[in-house]
Amino acid sequence: MGPLPRTLDFFYDVLSPYSWLAFEVLCRYKNIWNVSLQLRPTLIAGIMKDSGNQPPAMLPRKATYLKNDIRLLGQHLQVPIHFPKDFFSVILGKGSLTAMRFLTALKMEQPEMLEKVSRELWMRVWSRDEDITQPQSILAAAEKAGMSTGQVQGLLERISTPQVKDQLRETTEAACKYGAFGLPVTVAHLDDQAHMLFGSDRMELLAHLLGEKWMGPVPPAVNARL
Amino acid sequence: MGPLPRTLDFFYDVLSPYSWLAFEVLCRYKNIWNVSLQLRPTLIAGIMKDSGNQPPAMLPRKATYLKNDIRLLGQHLQVPIHFPKDFFSVILGKGSLTAMRFLTALKMEQPEMLEKVSRELWMRVWSRDEDITQPQSILAAAEKAGMSTGQVQGLLERISTPQVKDQLRETTEAACKYGAFGLPVTVAHLDDQAHMLFGSDRMELLAHLLGEKWMGPVPPAVNARL
Repeated sequence: MGPLPRTLDFFYDVLSPYSWLAFEVLCRYKNIWNVSLQLRPTLIAGIMKDSGNQPPAMLPRKATYLKNDIRLLGQHLQVPIHFPKDFFSVILGKGSLTAMRFLTALKMEQPEMLEKVSRELWMRVWSRDEDITQPQSILAAAEKAGMSTGQVQGLLERISTPQVKDQLRETTEAACKYGAFGLPVTVAHLDDQAHMLFGSDRMELLAHLLGEKWMGPVPPAVNARL
Repeated sequence: MGPLPRTLDFFYDVLSPYSWLAFEVLCRYKNIWNVSLQLRPTLIAGIMKDSGNQPPAMLPRKATYLKNDIRLLGQHLQVPIHFPKDFFSVILGKGSLTAMRFLTALKMEQPEMLEKVSRELWMRVWSRDEDITQPQSILAAAEKAGMSTGQVQGLLERISTPQVKDQLRETTEAACKYGAFGLPVTVAHLDDQAHMLFGSDRMELLAHLLGEKWMGPVPPAVNARL
């Protein structure tokens, strides 16, 4: 028997484009590296409020850079990411509370669906510039991921329960306790130490910390499938 | 004859730790990739003022993260970087105007020494927690890099001339025109297009844009020497 897999806690919000990029890289490596990837839906608005940070796009020059950075990274990482037309209204205005509560409820009841439904929500907001705030938008994403209408409606009914709200709040607080000031945050639990890594650009460093091999953002086994 | 080398403009300030990390990686790759690396001393205070950005360490949670991030990256990249004890006084208080004017004068008169002297200034401020604001500090760094006392004193006398001041201002403005909101900034000139990359964590993306191979932050040929 080999060594036990190391746990990676991945805190993310589907509103965050760099969360999507990191998510895809980690999903590719989770079966290559000896790790257990824990997807943890988090509310980015809560992180910003608690840390006193501002979304980078609030600074005009950063907003311009972000747009090009995400385009180039999308090509390099082979993730079909595209900026929404009206970034400020979609990302900063509408928020992600309903979507992240839905993912929280999903993690509690059908965790095996979390990866696919998260991806479909990113495909909506960060690839096809589609809504993710309305119940029918979430339904469409979840159905595309393979869930039945009945399953989704059952979960949608539970997203306003104290259990779901509290769970999302607790996860957001947990990220803050690790020092989050934005998302994504990956926490690698190694030898009684927790290493908090911010953003999508610490994956090679993560491999180094894990003692695993970095083979680029699209490892060969994945590349053969794409 | 092979294709002409692509130009990389590297805008940096020795006050910026991520500039040091990117600098070492680029200096390692400049003889491996088909590139011409142009080191361009820049004033980070000017970039911050012009863009309206704030140093990340102004946000307490980012300051805590930075410290750990730089420690981990230093190990991974094999750069002996250490946080100064009194970060706020050394980095945000004292600044780098004299040091960056000296490097500007050096680039104008002895460009072949720029890499070594820049490294010795980083070794002072970001490795051994030593001053870089006083003439004798700059003298010590430049002598360590192999310059004679006379050469250094000659340059120190010229750092307050309009030519040197204007050159540093022009370089800082050039970085701003590329969209800089911090340092380092690497501008890759490819097929009539300029790609501006911010920070030390876009080096694998840079390799991708150049069509060159990324072999990690310490490529094997360099690793054999370290």
